Amino acid sequence: MSHDARRYFSLPSPFPMKRGGELHGARVAFETWGALSDARDNALLILTGLSPSAHAASNEQDPSPGWWEAMIGPGKAIDTDRWFVICVNSLGSDKGSTCPASIDPATGEPYRLSFPELALEDVANAAHAAVSSLGIEQLACLVGCSMGGMSALAYMLLHPGSVRTHISVDTAPQAQPFAIAIRSLQREAIRLDPQWNNGRYDDAHYPETGMSIARKLGVITYRSAMEWNGRFARIRLDAEQRDDDVPFGFEFQVESYLEGHAQRFVRTFDPNSYLYLSRASDWFDISEYGEGSIQAGLKRIRVEQALVIGVSTDILFPLEQQEQIAEGLEAAGAAVEFVALDSPQGHDAFLVDIENYSRAIGGFLGRL
Amino acid sequence: MSHDARRYFSLPSPFPMKRGGELHGARVAFETWGALSDARDNALLILTGLSPSAHAASNEQDPSPGWWEAMIGPGKAIDTDRWFVICVNSLGSDKGSTCPASIDPATGEPYRLSFPELALEDVANAAHAAVSSLGIEQLACLVGCSMGGMSALAYMLLHPGSVRTHISVDTAPQAQPFAIAIRSLQREAIRLDPQWNNGRYDDAHYPETGMSIARKLGVITYRSAMEWNGRFARIRLDAEQRDDDVPFGFEFQVESYLEGHAQRFVRTFDPNSYLYLSRASDWFDISEYGEGSIQAGLKRIRVEQALVIGVSTDILFPLEQQEQIAEGLEAAGAAVEFVALDSPQGHDAFLVDIENYSRAIGGFLGRL
Repeated sequence: MSHDARRYFSLPSPFPMKRGGELHGARVAFETWGALSDARDNALLILTGLSPSAHAASNEQDPSPGWWEAMIGPGKAIDTDRWFVICVNSLGSDKGSTCPASIDPATGEPYRLSFPELALEDVANAAHAAVSSLGIEQLACLVGCSMGGMSALAYMLLHPGSVRTHISVDTAPQAQPFAIAIRSLQREAIRLDPQWNNGRYDDAHYPETGMSIARKLGVITYRSAMEWNGRFARIRLDAEQRDDDVPFGFEFQVESYLEGHAQRFVRTFDPNSYLYLSRASDWFDISEYGEGSIQAGLKRIRVEQALVIGVSTDILFPLEQQEQIAEGLEAAGAAVEFVALDSPQGHDAFLVDIENYSRAIGGFLGRL
Repeated sequence: MSHDARRYFSLPSPFPMKRGGELHGARVAFETWGALSDARDNALLILTGLSPSAHAASNEQDPSPGWWEAMIGPGKAIDTDRWFVICVNSLGSDKGSTCPASIDPATGEPYRLSFPELALEDVANAAHAAVSSLGIEQLACLVGCSMGGMSALAYMLLHPGSVRTHISVDTAPQAQPFAIAIRSLQREAIRLDPQWNNGRYDDAHYPETGMSIARKLGVITYRSAMEWNGRFARIRLDAEQRDDDVPFGFEFQVESYLEGHAQRFVRTFDPNSYLYLSRASDWFDISEYGEGSIQAGLKRIRVEQALVIGVSTDILFPLEQQEQIAEGLEAAGAAVEFVALDSPQGHDAFLVDIENYSRAIGGFLGRL
């Protein structure tokens, strides 16, 4: 039986939000692995992509595999014998943190669209507050993956001196128009679903179609054409896997793969939370802190060392954006390792190509 | 005032379809430019992508610009002073050819989903019948763009000796899983729209949302991230262009660009026709004619010369697939020119980067 390993940190109340408004009685969920050293100098924080929870790996309280199970644990690349690993669920995500599905203490009703506008800076500030509450003044390392990489940039910029080293994984210093277009279309699929009902859905009237289309579009853009050529090619579904009564129904394995991903997702992620976090990703732009220049924004970040990893097959967070981050952190004075991988899995490579990511991340952490 | 330049060719009745079933009293629409020589040896046929009509360029009867206006005309790359140019509207498309929106003579009602399953081989056979009806035994050149490039491969394979030279533009010898995934999701957006109603929509109850999502996803994949970085970057909409009453409404120019494309499309293309042609694209696979081998399939095509053009930024019909076509036609004995362009516009480059496409196509045709 799996138990919940989540712990919760109550955010300062009120908790002011970047774009206006504030939260009262808000909290973030987090999990930890390993032990904090007496000097409190071995803490490693992981900020996640849009949908993962704080359960990055199994632990005593919850032995179920986490979303980065192969990366985190005793003797693994993120070695819990050495590091005190913390993973915080993003503010605005429905995996334990305060989010649009949470009860607004002022009304006793779920926030839904009355949740204040969410920015990744708010996600960063909430994570920083949680880390501080553990008595940690400076992280030994801050790891940010995908959307979490953008939150990490905000974290370092807004809290100077709070991070010694940084690992940037498949992320971006700002959302580019292709990524905005994809996310905008995902949001549109949800909000044009009549069941979304301006955020006032319930279990019986739920924007299942919109969430399914959004998730499939996500999976398509998280992976790569190259991987799929090898994996699915033009393989047809078996007769018993097909529903021939559905006009224009699925015929190819790739279609059924997408359907499986969507079915696992649609009821396990709150649609309003999805909309808020998706929009926050579009809004993020480090150049806001550099008078319109990405490089000037990044130059305000102070870390000693950084590892920046990207993948040539990532169409959502292209390699060129990883190069920008590496250049900016280097210009800011960090010793930067830049690793460009050719993993065929696209944006999701950090979850799949564990061999190459372990080598890069484990190597970097091992040399600290 | 614009007049209709369409002419119609009545297909042999019954017209048998590849996957079973037949059409009665079917027709295809076409337009022509230039004059057929007495020897009938200067005919150039264009097979189109999924959505364009036969109006590839302006002509006397219809002076409105066509979809390839900059490419076709006196002195242009496809020079109508020399070539008798024909453009056929695909069978199954609603731009004048018999399609799911047409009246089924057996019932007096629109076919809708009772239209027989459509394959690109049927599109090719219908086009070939129309060309034959003009007294043309052999085309001087067959040009196929995008989906029309796949139809062109079928045309040449099914009608040996009917084509002397071939121009293949941004197409594929078979649909790969990434393209299948995108098109499957487009179809799903339409068929899950309650207004689609299993194909029984009307003007008052029309799958506008599904068509809009499908079109936007199309436009996203027809263009390229690189082009959009330069074109849209993160430019916001002006206040008067925004509708701040719409939750999660548009904020960025790229979103409004997609919306404009969608609005121009949704009511001008029959949703059922879209579904039929989209599925036909997924089904197409030249390797069916080569015992599972693309190269063996292509090797059955006999043309004297071919020009194969592709674009490095095309994610839907990647350059590697253009190389396969070039290699296959060469192995079949054709003299092949292969042109790999770096146009930033992605799959749509053939409609936009007229300079480079004109040079390649005009050069090839000029040397014939």
